[in-house]
Amino acid sequence: MTDEELIAACIASIPVPAPSAQQRAWARLESLTKPPGSLGRLEDVAARVATLRDEVRPSIPRKAIVLMAADHGVTDEGVSPYPREVTAQMVANFVSGGAAINQLARHAGATLTLIDIGVATPLPIAEGVVSARIADGTANMSRGPAMTREQAARAMRVGIEAARALAADGVDLIGTGEMGIGNTTSAAAIAAVLCGVAPSEVVGPGTGLDPAGVRHKTRVIEESIEVNAPNAADALDVLSKVGGFEIAGLSGVIIGAASAGVPVIVDGFISSAAALAALRMAPACASWMSASHLGSEPGHAIVLEALGLTPVLELDMRLGEGTGAALAMEIIDAACAMMSGMATFAEAGVTDREG
Amino acid sequence: MTDEELIAACIASIPVPAPSAQQRAWARLESLTKPPGSLGRLEDVAARVATLRDEVRPSIPRKAIVLMAADHGVTDEGVSPYPREVTAQMVANFVSGGAAINQLARHAGATLTLIDIGVATPLPIAEGVVSARIADGTANMSRGPAMTREQAARAMRVGIEAARALAADGVDLIGTGEMGIGNTTSAAAIAAVLCGVAPSEVVGPGTGLDPAGVRHKTRVIEESIEVNAPNAADALDVLSKVGGFEIAGLSGVIIGAASAGVPVIVDGFISSAAALAALRMAPACASWMSASHLGSEPGHAIVLEALGLTPVLELDMRLGEGTGAALAMEIIDAACAMMSGMATFAEAGVTDREG
Repeated sequence: MTDEELIAACIASIPVPAPSAQQRAWARLESLTKPPGSLGRLEDVAARVATLRDEVRPSIPRKAIVLMAADHGVTDEGVSPYPREVTAQMVANFVSGGAAINQLARHAGATLTLIDIGVATPLPIAEGVVSARIADGTANMSRGPAMTREQAARAMRVGIEAARALAADGVDLIGTGEMGIGNTTSAAAIAAVLCGVAPSEVVGPGTGLDPAGVRHKTRVIEESIEVNAPNAADALDVLSKVGGFEIAGLSGVIIGAASAGVPVIVDGFISSAAALAALRMAPACASWMSASHLGSEPGHAIVLEALGLTPVLELDMRLGEGTGAALAMEIIDAACAMMSGMATFAEAGVTDREG
Repeated sequence: MTDEELIAACIASIPVPAPSAQQRAWARLESLTKPPGSLGRLEDVAARVATLRDEVRPSIPRKAIVLMAADHGVTDEGVSPYPREVTAQMVANFVSGGAAINQLARHAGATLTLIDIGVATPLPIAEGVVSARIADGTANMSRGPAMTREQAARAMRVGIEAARALAADGVDLIGTGEMGIGNTTSAAAIAAVLCGVAPSEVVGPGTGLDPAGVRHKTRVIEESIEVNAPNAADALDVLSKVGGFEIAGLSGVIIGAASAGVPVIVDGFISSAAALAALRMAPACASWMSASHLGSEPGHAIVLEALGLTPVLELDMRLGEGTGAALAMEIIDAACAMMSGMATFAEAGVTDREG
């Protein structure tokens, strides 16, 4: 089976949640000792998990963040204030436990799966990192395709297999995370093509460009789209021409999780671009995705709208790594605890509303 | 010492956080392995705790929710779809562990202190409830003052003493919670007077009134303000004339926590009205307060603006009980874990940004 055939088979196997499970979830929520709907979006979050797991007392004891790291040839164009070596250094920081995601994943009770899917420079510490390297970073997309179609499909396969391995291991909820100097440039290019908007509408400061830097980054994205002419109707073509290995990998994680019936939390702007590519290839994964947070990168809101997702949090974050997904897991877990543990009006002997 | 003298002494003792603590907090946050500011509001939350505790590696191991319950004479006017007995029944539900706040407090690792500060009907279960009853509910504020000035001061004293007892017990963070059928009516009246806006701007459906019910509730609030003519420059006068025992009690909790140097998370609309009264009496408590969430009750945003607080969460909740405070504790705790556990650029050997 080729990688593209494996992806197609995976997409074909994505289950559809039962409408009756949703009805059961809301029937329980309405019976609990609170005015109907008074917990607002917390009820939506709980109902979603309850529906996807078909449990009226949902719980998600095993949570995992999949963090994929890769480099981007387009950094040759000066689109980030950080040098490319930082990708490898940050992977070592993830291994050592010093990064933001380490603290937030641990606090949320989530494991962290680190995958090197194409870091360009040697990892200072590689212990505990899954090596699934497609190449030493992508090619410079402003001069030609970032990768071949075969490489994009292979990256997706890496993600599918990672998600399925976690599902087989009993994981109940997967969050997406990424690290790659230059990857907001790639994500903005994907977003512009798939949303049909100008790069200037989705480009932002990333890790901290000044306005002149943002204008330069915009021109680089415009050039990349012009040079490669990605086909917006073929998301794999878009991923291969202006994507990144970690982005295609996360598209695979999302499709893989959905196919295994595991809900997936899409993190920030870069993960959302990956999710939009996944959704275009596999509309059925919509049921299985939720969005962690609305970040401060300007393209994020546009991509979330295209995904049809309302984020759980809004904290002006723009770090990536899966940090928003880890925070959202705390709220999702609390929502499940609420729905599972509350008494009904009948159980508690509380008088329901008049009329 | 009269209750009013005790309140004045408490206010006079509120400490001012050291500006140098804030500088130390931000210096550490900027040294950590992430682009500066890239964790957005999570950094603000962490910096605030670090400043208030004067710890560059902050932690808040001991968290508590103070939940005050009382009844409102104004329910005689038909301002809630639930009968008054539900207040006592819900207190029993809190004792039995069946309410939303029980699940969310437990999930956040917070203890729950239940205080009956004036429930009108007998509690079906009273075990574990602190009895500090001022009266069997307030009087009907649409006919005259809800309580005397002495009762309002006594209710505040109950709150001050509860907060100080928790502080003496080593609690690091206090969240406010309330239960009282009819208390959105009282909170809206307080908000209208203290913010200087028309009742129609701050009134909402509460536990679930229809538009005609909201119009009736608005008229009841207008009448209550007209009959009592509360003095907006004297917050204790406002609390006594159109307040509730649990609301005045929470004003006391906020002032008491601030005086003990314990940060306090103000929950939804009703708690926010209590916080605004506290702030007007004691401007120094501003440093010690944060807001958990922006709820769906229309007056909430207006009161938060008057408080100068940006909420951590926005989940369209309107339950009260301290549920938003418990959820916000999860994010605050995670923010502290981030700030305490992350490596600096120097420690991790990660190259900082160029230039």
